[in-house]
Amino acid sequence: MLTFEQYLDKVNEVIDAIPYPQEPARLYDPIAYTMSLGGKRIRPVLALMTCDAMGGDIDEVLPPAVGVELFHNFTLLHDDVMDRADVRRGKPTVHRKWCDNVAILSGDAMLTLAMQWVSKAPQTCMAQVMDVFNRTAMEIYEGQQWDMDFERRNDVTVDEYMHMIRLKTSVLLGCACQVGALVAGAAAADVDAISEVAVNTGLAFQLRDDVLDVWGDPATFGKATGGDILNNKKTFLLINALQRAQGEDAEELNYWLTEKKVMPDFKVQGVTALYERLGVRQLAEDAIDHYTALALDGLQRVSMSEDGRNAFVAFIHQLVNRVK
Amino acid sequence: MLTFEQYLDKVNEVIDAIPYPQEPARLYDPIAYTMSLGGKRIRPVLALMTCDAMGGDIDEVLPPAVGVELFHNFTLLHDDVMDRADVRRGKPTVHRKWCDNVAILSGDAMLTLAMQWVSKAPQTCMAQVMDVFNRTAMEIYEGQQWDMDFERRNDVTVDEYMHMIRLKTSVLLGCACQVGALVAGAAAADVDAISEVAVNTGLAFQLRDDVLDVWGDPATFGKATGGDILNNKKTFLLINALQRAQGEDAEELNYWLTEKKVMPDFKVQGVTALYERLGVRQLAEDAIDHYTALALDGLQRVSMSEDGRNAFVAFIHQLVNRVK
Repeated sequence: MLTFEQYLDKVNEVIDAIPYPQEPARLYDPIAYTMSLGGKRIRPVLALMTCDAMGGDIDEVLPPAVGVELFHNFTLLHDDVMDRADVRRGKPTVHRKWCDNVAILSGDAMLTLAMQWVSKAPQTCMAQVMDVFNRTAMEIYEGQQWDMDFERRNDVTVDEYMHMIRLKTSVLLGCACQVGALVAGAAAADVDAISEVAVNTGLAFQLRDDVLDVWGDPATFGKATGGDILNNKKTFLLINALQRAQGEDAEELNYWLTEKKVMPDFKVQGVTALYERLGVRQLAEDAIDHYTALALDGLQRVSMSEDGRNAFVAFIHQLVNRVK
Repeated sequence: MLTFEQYLDKVNEVIDAIPYPQEPARLYDPIAYTMSLGGKRIRPVLALMTCDAMGGDIDEVLPPAVGVELFHNFTLLHDDVMDRADVRRGKPTVHRKWCDNVAILSGDAMLTLAMQWVSKAPQTCMAQVMDVFNRTAMEIYEGQQWDMDFERRNDVTVDEYMHMIRLKTSVLLGCACQVGALVAGAAAADVDAISEVAVNTGLAFQLRDDVLDVWGDPATFGKATGGDILNNKKTFLLINALQRAQGEDAEELNYWLTEKKVMPDFKVQGVTALYERLGVRQLAEDAIDHYTALALDGLQRVSMSEDGRNAFVAFIHQLVNRVK
């Protein structure tokens, strides 16, 4: 087994060497720009780690792993158009730097580019890899649609929220592991089992994101905190707070959610204090622990090298306890 | 060989039976809506015809042929967002009926759905089919980007225009034929040759579209004529007119292109008369004849049944001499 950084280096070496045609510039430049902004590259690293832990050849899994990362970045590019987001990884989003049309079309091209890389999987497992990848892609679109639908609703339940983040975030981590396992020639039961480990890790990972957006240290988190609160985003915290708040707490929460003429800092401080008082921060930490335990427990039942298992345990802890 | 209508029936039978999940409704309903609007289904019919003419099993080519049609409709869906088009096939476009975000995301899902159908090609040729399909998709995005770039330029040449419509329209007809030929197990030279026939047919087909938009009979064409003129769209006709017009003609053309306070009917009549006077209608008819001859000539060098060749000849004439 290699270290996380060594897998990352291999992934970045391939990503940095992707050849983009020069023209038409407004089609290809935004793709090169998006991929140059970096990111944690968690998904391709997971694919490499899984393949390695299961005795596969990591050079064989590199192309489809890069395909999964291209796909992930395509979803961010189009999500940023839909969410009217101005900044991604500290830089202007594609639709801000160019325009909506450029973002739509270069995103489409990025999805096809992702497919081209995914289809470089070894011939022996290519049909299965494609199948997993395409099914996962559909689930991710479903997750994004639910997320947008939730914005227009005030009765979203915690179960619905967990279902949404499973689709929008977790299944692609599961897909990355499945790709790694398939390339390694793993048994079907192990392909499913490592995917479930990754999905549970992904749920804990996303809940950590919700927590960091409120209580993270902006200096290490890399972006301002309080964004979800200011946008009334229906996170695990807000949905639970809406369910728990009674009497004056309910009135105060409603005030913060509906009053437009309030100073942003006041709103962030007020809602954060309410979250603490209602105990939803603890609820989130408990849920993170729950899904982390499920992931670690499931990991014990996957056939892989002991080195591989240890690497996975360390990676899971790193992902769910991250501060950025 | 079957008749065009019989191939079409087979294609429509599969398209009409595509199962769409119920939820999230705003993700899947727009896809079902788009596919329910019909269309000429030229591309999947071409795939079936090619496969049949080359001795293949048309049931095997049906799934990837439907994938090509799904892809074509995905491009129209996203193009309509980018072009702010309100109407498609006499009905509101998806972004008008729902909203931009729904059009973007359901389009993405439609592209992945297309990939799922394309990847149902027989195992023996799946990698080649995927490769042709993905390369073609990239070319089509390039074509759309050039088309958008041309809107911001006043020095587009006829060669650039022909290159753009080759990418935006023709290569997908070529792809459909390649898919049919690959499923039939044709030799590489024949796969390329039938593709070239389709590409040349596609160029004549698109030039016919430019002509019909000016001189078509609205009753049979199915939509109002003059749309390209009103939008100053850089068609084969306008680009040639800009090159040919001298003196008073150039002044008049410039007037129609820049004067905003002119009655639409006047502008359409004025530009149409200029086109006639400058001889660009005849130029377009000559170009249509040229590419049709190239297609028919190329067809003679493709190995296929004589029945198949006759069916192709008839189909090519039908496409380039169409009135709607």
